[in-house]
Amino acid sequence: MDKIKRNERLGALTRILMDTPNRIHTLSEFCELFGAAKSTISEDIDLVSASLARFDLGCVETVAGAAGGVRYRAMPSPARVRRTLDAVARRLTEPGRMLPGGFLYTSDITAEGGVAQQMGEILAAQYYDSKPHFVLTMETKGIPIALMTARMLDVPLVIARRDSRAYEGSAVKINYIAGGNDRIETMALTRRAVSPGQRALIVDDFMKGGGTLQGMVDLMREFLAEVVGVCVMIATAKPEAKRVDNVRSLLILEGFDPVTGCANIHPAEEFR
Amino acid sequence: MDKIKRNERLGALTRILMDTPNRIHTLSEFCELFGAAKSTISEDIDLVSASLARFDLGCVETVAGAAGGVRYRAMPSPARVRRTLDAVARRLTEPGRMLPGGFLYTSDITAEGGVAQQMGEILAAQYYDSKPHFVLTMETKGIPIALMTARMLDVPLVIARRDSRAYEGSAVKINYIAGGNDRIETMALTRRAVSPGQRALIVDDFMKGGGTLQGMVDLMREFLAEVVGVCVMIATAKPEAKRVDNVRSLLILEGFDPVTGCANIHPAEEFR
Repeated sequence: MDKIKRNERLGALTRILMDTPNRIHTLSEFCELFGAAKSTISEDIDLVSASLARFDLGCVETVAGAAGGVRYRAMPSPARVRRTLDAVARRLTEPGRMLPGGFLYTSDITAEGGVAQQMGEILAAQYYDSKPHFVLTMETKGIPIALMTARMLDVPLVIARRDSRAYEGSAVKINYIAGGNDRIETMALTRRAVSPGQRALIVDDFMKGGGTLQGMVDLMREFLAEVVGVCVMIATAKPEAKRVDNVRSLLILEGFDPVTGCANIHPAEEFR
Repeated sequence: MDKIKRNERLGALTRILMDTPNRIHTLSEFCELFGAAKSTISEDIDLVSASLARFDLGCVETVAGAAGGVRYRAMPSPARVRRTLDAVARRLTEPGRMLPGGFLYTSDITAEGGVAQQMGEILAAQYYDSKPHFVLTMETKGIPIALMTARMLDVPLVIARRDSRAYEGSAVKINYIAGGNDRIETMALTRRAVSPGQRALIVDDFMKGGGTLQGMVDLMREFLAEVVGVCVMIATAKPEAKRVDNVRSLLILEGFDPVTGCANIHPAEEFR
């Protein structure tokens, strides 16, 4: 292979780091790939790091120690988080999103890869220090956001089901109180998904009463797993009392305008 | 802002292009961001393009015309596709994945962000020319792969449900034949998800008889949408006759070793 110039390395280097968020790469790995010395690669990494930092596009960090190396994390700045959440909130206030029962139609937005990615970047940034082993969500609408959060943390996504399907093997089932109307529902999770002592980050798209989230917390107790955080993309302001405490929400749905039917939704205090 | 050197632009440029796969960015957008001339940015783009191409990390293309600009597509080479599929197949042959009924336990792998991303890159590459307006999947297990395929195509993901939920508004329901045992099930999709005349790409994780896929094809007919492709991550070799024709599969599950219980699974002919 010809000698590769710096200009020809930076694109590939950025691509590899971004493709594996939160995963530590050794300098040797890049030295081998690019046929360059450690000092050279180290300078490359500084350049990529400065470039991303300058435009608020993420953070390339050097991790010291025996298992050390470099890793990419999105880590959006407070200003970027605010801009992102404002933009999503604006879309959610479009007319025609109010559904019977005080629900908000969000499926088109939560299932957009770009939006799910942004929400995942924001949520993951809050939980790097908690070092979750996996992200847990309950099917269906929270999956895109939970998947992207898990991807940014570089951990697997675990999906609880409404029923246990044949193709997932033996499962643990629990009952939980769903919706506001005290309906009892079932949540199931295959036994092999979680090991005792693991740390779980619970992610969902929407919280009203918090029953589904409470179900996921209970489910983790059955698996002897520790819940290190519970977070949602949107929480309703009412009821104020939720079944689960300390839920982090990106957006707060205050209600709907009685005349236009448009949602009144804004970023949560913490992100304003 | 100080004058930004080339070395300080390449990381950010790569990050922006990768973050918005298949989306066309104008040169002016980058000129403004970096405070540089078009000819300079154009050279930057050539460098990033060459860097990614050299290491088989994707493709930065210039699109001519009034709506022209540059866009990033992953476009893995046949060799990379083969390597990726071999690696996934190897993981799926691990002992203990055979479930009662001839099913294969895949949930841990299909819900890994990195794997879903790779599968999405491979699938999207097959359908750029068909220009789908959205990707359709049926909850639950196919969602990660379908989401990543949609993200790579820069189109929304639409998720059909087993029942229509209050928070999705009025829905179209159809019946379909699920599993091998001719069980009739229901599939629902909110009316507002699809407009007549749109092109749909159907993506799922697993096909045995093809009943669920046939259901999605029927559902699209109800919406007067055109199906431009049907694809899955894994198809079983048996039964040979599927309910839907021309399904593209990345991996073929031949069956299980009667002694070890390990799956016999390999990349499909097209990707070998």
